[in-house]
Amino acid sequence: MKIKPLADRIVVEPIEEEEPKKGKIIIPDTAKEKPQQGKVIAVGPGRIIEDGKRISPEVKTGDTVLYGKYSGTEIEIDDKKYLILDERDILAVIE
Amino acid sequence: MKIKPLADRIVVEPIEEEEPKKGKIIIPDTAKEKPQQGKVIAVGPGRIIEDGKRISPEVKTGDTVLYGKYSGTEIEIDDKKYLILDERDILAVIE
Amino acid sequence: MKIKPLADRIVVEPIEEEEPKKGKIIIPDTAKEKPQQGKVIAVGPGRIIEDGKRISPEVKTGDTVLYGKYSGTEIEIDDKKYLILDERDILAVIE
Amino acid sequence: MKIKPLADRIVVEPIEEEEPKKGKIIIPDTAKEKPQQGKVIAVGPGRIIEDGKRISPEVKTGDTVLYGKYSGTEIEIDDKKYLILDERDILAVIE
Amino acid sequence: MKIKPLADRIVVEPIEEEEPKKGKIIIPDTAKEKPQQGKVIAVGPGRIIEDGKRISPEVKTGDTVLYGKYSGTEIEIDDKKYLILDERDILAVIE
Amino acid sequence: MKIKPLADRIVVEPIEEEEPKKGKIIIPDTAKEKPQQGKVIAVGPGRIIEDGKRISPEVKTGDTVLYGKYSGTEIEIDDKKYLILDERDILAVIE
Amino acid sequence: MKIKPLADRIVVEPIEEEEPKKGKIIIPDTAKEKPQQGKVIAVGPGRIIEDGKRISPEVKTGDTVLYGKYSGTEIEIDDKKYLILDERDILAVIE
Repeated sequence: MKIKPLADRIVVEPIEEEEPKKGKIIIPDTAKEKPQQGKVIAVGPGRIIEDGKRISPEVKTGDTVLYGKYSGTEIEIDDKKYLILDERDILAVIE
Repeated sequence: MKIKPLADRIVVEPIEEEEPKKGKIIIPDTAKEKPQQGKVIAVGPGRIIEDGKRISPEVKTGDTVLYGKYSGTEIEIDDKKYLILDERDILAVIE
Repeated sequence: MKIKPLADRIVVEPIEEEEPKKGKIIIPDTAKEKPQQGKVIAVGPGRIIEDGKRISPEVKTGDTVLYGKYSGTEIEIDDKKYLILDERDILAVIE
Repeated sequence: MKIKPLADRIVVEPIEEEEPKKGKIIIPDTAKEKPQQGKVIAVGPGRIIEDGKRISPEVKTGDTVLYGKYSGTEIEIDDKKYLILDERDILAVIE
Repeated sequence: MKIKPLADRIVVEPIEEEEPKKGKIIIPDTAKEKPQQGKVIAVGPGRIIEDGKRISPEVKTGDTVLYGKYSGTEIEIDDKKYLILDERDILAVIE
Repeated sequence: MKIKPLADRIVVEPIEEEEPKKGKIIIPDTAKEKPQQGKVIAVGPGRIIEDGKRISPEVKTGDTVLYGKYSGTEIEIDDKKYLILDERDILAVIE
Repeated sequence: MKIKPLADRIVVEPIEEEEPKKGKIIIPDTAKEKPQQGKVIAVGPGRIIEDGKRISPEVKTGDTVLYGKYSGTEIEIDDKKYLILDERDILAVIE
């Protein structure tokens, strides 16, 4: 089974938060708005701009990304949870 | 009798949720916003962009799609329920 | 007497809801948002897009259309009621 | 004394509602939103679109028009009341 | 001392309302929204549209104009009150 | 130390209100919205419009300007207070 | 570990406020909206405008910037706090 997001939507598998430790990006409890990390598993073909051209998303399958905590729509495939996000909900790629 | 949606509207026949089982995309009860599945039965010709060109929808008749739970307008044709959705309410195609 | 809608406005004669029966599109009482049926009696010349071109409406006189229940402005011509709708309030054409 | 509306504004002299009779467009008391009739007495030169071209209004002096009841700004010239409307507040021309 | 409004702003000297009399545009007390009269004393160079061209305002110094009662920002120059208005707040020119 | 505003932002040093006197623009206490005066001390390079061109602000360093009382962000440089404003918050230049 | 912001997002390391002293930009307690200072540590590739071109951000790595106090999303990398901001949240560069 495969999920193909439309337009500039991105399917992300969330990465559970572990104990904060050196060398890992953690999200402080006191943060104003807490972003979360996830791994990109599917990328839409991109949104279409006014003259009909398509703008490819800036992330690719396999990227580790930060996204806003309250963004997106949860789905379950084979008992695993995923999120469908708009590309603008993704803040940064972690390398 | 036939229904022809206008612009980028899509007519979808909802797929009833069954018992969650392996290999099927199910929607968790605790989801922030629950998408639903349906089968596309009619697709509009696409919206017209500012220079007069038409952008064809990215889904086609027969596709299984995920859409937001509270999206669209319900109609009944020959005692079966359908939804008329805007294309942007469709999150992904399932293969 | 004749009514000529401006821009992309459409004049529709509502079709009264009858007893639900096979072969007719009926609107369920429990629908989230109930669309209604009507017959198109006049169509505006279309809205003007930014470069000055005009986009003709996608419906024509005589079409049977579905539109949102709370859309439009009611008028009476010779004791019959009509609705003036924006084209975007029309969801689909029924054939 | 003469009034010259700017951009796509239209000056209309309202037509008082008479007794409803055959052959006249009347506005039912139970209408969701009641449009009114008026005669166009002055038309602005049209709004300017993004590339600097001007879009002439679709109504002309002398037209009988339908407009939304709560639209526009009332003025008095020589003890007669008029309305200054935006062109988009005008729903249709009556012939 | 001189005031030069920016973009499509217009400086207007309000004209006090006198006793209503024939041949003068007066504003009825029962008006839904009461426009006011004023004389244009300075006109901005115009707003810049998306391709960088400038759209000159449609009024000129010396024009008598109607504008919405609650529009604009009051200033005083040499003990006289003026209003700085956006051009879109001006409804019509009186001749 | 030097401050370089981005895009179409303008840094202004507010001019304190003195006793109202002839030949000075004063702001009446009863004004609907009270603009304030200031001297421009830094001007951004201008905003970028959709085709990538830059629109230079219409004010320059040294200009005396009127701006809305509640506009902008206060900063202090070397114990003096300044405001960072968007260009659209500036109503007029005083000469 | 490296963070690559998307589109026109900027990663900033906040600079703690010290005792106010001459020659430093400080933020008065009574300010309407208090901007903060930070050092830019990563800059996105820029947003894409309607014809598909990319607009590079106006700040670069190493710049000291002023930004709105309540802007952005907090993250932690290796126990240090950073902010991910949109470029429009950055008011000025300090030199």
